[in-house]
Amino acid sequence: MPHPSVLPGKIEALPRSQIRRIMALAAEMDDVVHLEVGEPAEGTRAEIIRDAMEAALNGATKYVPNAGSPALRKLIAERISDRNRVAVDPGRVVATTGAVGALFTAMSLVVEPGEEVLLPDPGWTNYQSMVLFAGATFRTYPLYPERGFEPDPEEIEALIGPKTRAILVNSPGNPTGAVWRAPCIDRVAEIARARNLHVISDEIYEEMTFDADHVSFMGRDIDDRLWVVSGFSKSFAMTGWRIGWLVAPAHSVESAIALQEPTVSCISAVSQAAAIAALSKYPQTPGELAAIYRRRRDILVEELAGSGLIAARPAGAFYCLIDITRTGMSSMEAALDLLEKKKVAAVPGGSFGPRSDRYLRLAFTTSDDRLKTGCRRILEWVSER
Amino acid sequence: MPHPSVLPGKIEALPRSQIRRIMALAAEMDDVVHLEVGEPAEGTRAEIIRDAMEAALNGATKYVPNAGSPALRKLIAERISDRNRVAVDPGRVVATTGAVGALFTAMSLVVEPGEEVLLPDPGWTNYQSMVLFAGATFRTYPLYPERGFEPDPEEIEALIGPKTRAILVNSPGNPTGAVWRAPCIDRVAEIARARNLHVISDEIYEEMTFDADHVSFMGRDIDDRLWVVSGFSKSFAMTGWRIGWLVAPAHSVESAIALQEPTVSCISAVSQAAAIAALSKYPQTPGELAAIYRRRRDILVEELAGSGLIAARPAGAFYCLIDITRTGMSSMEAALDLLEKKKVAAVPGGSFGPRSDRYLRLAFTTSDDRLKTGCRRILEWVSER
Repeated sequence: MPHPSVLPGKIEALPRSQIRRIMALAAEMDDVVHLEVGEPAEGTRAEIIRDAMEAALNGATKYVPNAGSPALRKLIAERISDRNRVAVDPGRVVATTGAVGALFTAMSLVVEPGEEVLLPDPGWTNYQSMVLFAGATFRTYPLYPERGFEPDPEEIEALIGPKTRAILVNSPGNPTGAVWRAPCIDRVAEIARARNLHVISDEIYEEMTFDADHVSFMGRDIDDRLWVVSGFSKSFAMTGWRIGWLVAPAHSVESAIALQEPTVSCISAVSQAAAIAALSKYPQTPGELAAIYRRRRDILVEELAGSGLIAARPAGAFYCLIDITRTGMSSMEAALDLLEKKKVAAVPGGSFGPRSDRYLRLAFTTSDDRLKTGCRRILEWVSER
Repeated sequence: MPHPSVLPGKIEALPRSQIRRIMALAAEMDDVVHLEVGEPAEGTRAEIIRDAMEAALNGATKYVPNAGSPALRKLIAERISDRNRVAVDPGRVVATTGAVGALFTAMSLVVEPGEEVLLPDPGWTNYQSMVLFAGATFRTYPLYPERGFEPDPEEIEALIGPKTRAILVNSPGNPTGAVWRAPCIDRVAEIARARNLHVISDEIYEEMTFDADHVSFMGRDIDDRLWVVSGFSKSFAMTGWRIGWLVAPAHSVESAIALQEPTVSCISAVSQAAAIAALSKYPQTPGELAAIYRRRRDILVEELAGSGLIAARPAGAFYCLIDITRTGMSSMEAALDLLEKKKVAAVPGGSFGPRSDRYLRLAFTTSDDRLKTGCRRILEWVSER
C-alpha cells in the first residue's frame, strides 16, 4: 500500500517565493549588502517592547477575542479615520496575524473556487498564492514604469470577465514603490462599483510616502465591497509581532471574525499590548520612520542617477525596481550573478508576475552606508556585464 | 446594481461556537463562576515573559523563518523525542500560530474539496470548521462515556468510505478529558495504515495527564501519514502567545512550511523567544501545571461524587463532561439556565457533535475555591430541576 503522499493540487501549485533562495545563499556569505529584505532595519522601539512586557506581566498572556480587543479596534479605527478623513466604525475592524492574515481572510471570504481575481504585475508573490489557495485563478493587469507604476484603469476594466470577483490593489506598492494618485484610485473604485466587484486594497505601506500623501480607497462610496488591509509591521517596525488589521464591509465583518477562530484563534495578546502602546503612546513613530526612508530613497536615487537602471523613482514603500534588460539575463540569473560577483542580495523580479522578469527589486531598508555601498557595487556589476 | 454580498458557501457553513454566546452573557454578570474557559487561570510564568522581553530588546522583533528558527525547531524535536521515546528530526517540525495553526495547516494539506474526514463526537467544534473550510465534509465516530470516552476502533473502520482521507484524533481530549490507552491508539494506527488514511493527532493536552501517561501516535510506524499537533498554550500556560507546532510527514513538511507564508508569514518573533526560554530554561513548568490540574480534577470529582452527573472521570486535559439528560433540556437551554439561575458558565455540548447535546462541558481551570463553589451551585441547580 503506497503512503498517501499526494498533496492537494492547490498546495502543489503555490508559487515558491524566489526571495527565499537568494536569502539562503546570502546567509552563507560574508560582507553581503542586504537589499532583499522587506522590513525596516530598525527594530521596534524599546518603549513599545517595555510596555508590552509590562502588560504581559499584568496578565496579558491569555486568549484575546477573535477580532482583537475592543480597545485595539477602537484605536485602529481612530487612526484610520484621522488619516483618511473618513468615519470608520471600530466594529468593521478585525485585528489579524499581520497584514498577511488580513489579506488571507479577505481573499477567503471574497472568492469561491473557480472564480478569478485581478492582480497587479509587478505585484507581491503571495497574492498569487492566496488566490490559488482559495481555489481561484488570477489574471494580471500591467503597471507601467513610465506612469510611475500606475495601471491604465481601462485595461483593468477590459480584463473583467464573468468569473471575475475582485481587483487587488497595492498602493504604496511592493515591489514598485509606486503611490497611486487620486484619479487612478477613483477610476478603479468606479469600475468596481459599476462592474459589481470587490476591491481588496493592501495599504500596508500607507505611512511610507515621500512625495505626496497616500490615497486610500476609503471614502469612495464602495464600502460595501471594500476590504482594506494594513498593519503595524512597516509603520511601526513591528514585522516580527505579527499584527495587522482588516477593515471589512459591514455585512461581512462577522464572517471575517469567525474565520480567525479555526485558522489562528486570535492575535497574540502580547502583540496586541504592543500595538495598543504603539498607537496610544508613540503615534509619531511612522512619521519618524518615513523620514528615514525618504532619506534612503534619496540616497538610492542619487547613487543610481544617470545609470538608467531605475525603472521609476519610488514615491513610497521602501522598494525600487531596477531594469536589468541590458544584461541579457533572466532576473534569477541576474540576482544570482549579482550576489556571487558583488555580494549584493536583491530579489528577482520573476516572482512578481509574468511581465516582471526584467527587474530586480532593491529594498532600501538597510543603513545609509550599506545602501551606498550596495548601489556602487550594482553600478560596477552592470558596467562589467 | 446590488452589492456583491454573497459570501462563499464554505464560510456561511462554518459552525459558530456556542461558547461565545455563553461568554458574552457571562461577561455582563457579576459573581459568575467561569467553568467555560479552556485555558489555565494561571498566566505565563514571569521568567518566561522577562526572557522574551530581553530577546525583543536585543532585536527579536523581526520576521523569523516560515518554519520558526532552527533553535526552536531543535528544542521542540528534543522535547517530543524525550517524551515519546522516538527520534524526531527537527526538519519535520514547523512552528505554527498555536495548535490551531498547526491543525489548519495539516487539514489544508491533507484534504481536497469533496473528500471526507472522520472526527470524534464529542469533539472540538473547530475541527468541523477546518474541514468545511477545506471544502471537505466529515463523519463523526462516537466516543463512549462507559469506555472513558475511547472509541470502538472497529466502528471507525466501518465508517471509512471511498472519499475518506483522514482520521482526526484528540487525546487527551477536549471536551472529554479522556486519555486513550495504547491498545486503542495502536489499533487506530493499524487501521490508518491498512486503509491508507492520514492521521491528524491533536496532542495539545499531552502534558496534562493525571492517572496514566499520554500515548502518542508517534513511533507506530505511520510516520508517512501522521500529522502531530501540539504547542505551548496549555503545557506552559501560554495561550495568548499563539505558538504551537506541527510534526509533518517528511515528504510534506516543505509544503507545510510554504503554507505559512501566504496565511500568517511566520510565528511571532517575541513568542518564539518566549518559547525558546520555556523549553530551555523552565522545562519543569508543564509538570507543575499538571499537578495543579490533577488537584482540581480531584476536587471536581469529589464535589460531584454520587450525583451521577459525571459522564466519565477525566484522566487528562482540564475538562469534564456532565450528563444533563435528567433535566430534559437541550444543552444550550441548560447552559443558559445554569448561568441565569446559578451564575455558573459552562459550554453546551451541542457544539461538540450530533450525539453530544446531553452534555455540558466544565473546565476545571479556575481556582480551587471557585471550582468548589461552581460544583455546589451545579448540584443545587440540578436538585431544583
